[in-house]
Amino acid sequence: MEPRVDFISLGVRSVDRSRAFYIDGLGWPVHREVAGEVLFIQVNHGLVLSLWDARQMQAEAGVSPPDGVPCITLSHNLASAGDVDRVMEEAAAAGAAIIAEPVTQPWGGYTGYFADPDGFRWEVAYNPTWTVDDAGTVTV
Amino acid sequence: MEPRVDFISLGVRSVDRSRAFYIDGLGWPVHREVAGEVLFIQVNHGLVLSLWDARQMQAEAGVSPPDGVPCITLSHNLASAGDVDRVMEEAAAAGAAIIAEPVTQPWGGYTGYFADPDGFRWEVAYNPTWTVDDAGTVTV
Repeated sequence: MEPRVDFISLGVRSVDRSRAFYIDGLGWPVHREVAGEVLFIQVNHGLVLSLWDARQMQAEAGVSPPDGVPCITLSHNLASAGDVDRVMEEAAAAGAAIIAEPVTQPWGGYTGYFADPDGFRWEVAYNPTWTVDDAGTVTV
Repeated sequence: MEPRVDFISLGVRSVDRSRAFYIDGLGWPVHREVAGEVLFIQVNHGLVLSLWDARQMQAEAGVSPPDGVPCITLSHNLASAGDVDRVMEEAAAAGAAIIAEPVTQPWGGYTGYFADPDGFRWEVAYNPTWTVDDAGTVTV
């Protein structure tokens, strides 16, 4: 597994309220938005901050943090479903707890989740809609 | 405030255990380490993953999450202490909760902390030891 983070996903109580803060308040540009579900903002060369409705995020990741615990996922994206299986095996061999074995998601991707020794969640993902060009610009 | 994340800091229970997972297990390279305190790994163009002893991290950030809550900080670095003051004011104007007004840290930096609407913590920092070259390589 290469040292790389592709998405930082914050599980938020209200995407509209996140929009008011990050977009209207701080003036950050929207990359893409699914109203009430998720808001993507490109924050670095190849890196996206995702503000994701916490209930939907928890449903997809297969875990429900206790009430009041902010949920966050660091994503590591790969070029194929086979790569996802391989990296999940590498993470397990390194001592990761497997939270969710890789499955095909309704949006077309193939993702698994593991936790590091402190429980921080990593998503290992093949996302056919995601590209990064040479300049680091992301398309999702 | 520009849309940019410079550090992802995870508060960990044991830096040695994080080292066993990320360095020995996954094979990621150490950028810099202060034994038992913090371990830096460059994960992207200009982006560092920091695995930081949770007690020290909580002391510096001025907050103590409840037991069992993983603590995480997204850092936004700037070129001067004056820039830190300005961006903290911008964040407050956008509706952020100010967690810690900017202060000079023992390690020579000048940092403040705010929380977004869901409580996710951002550090706004002037760090005189931190540089990023044109290729995105970080020196801390």
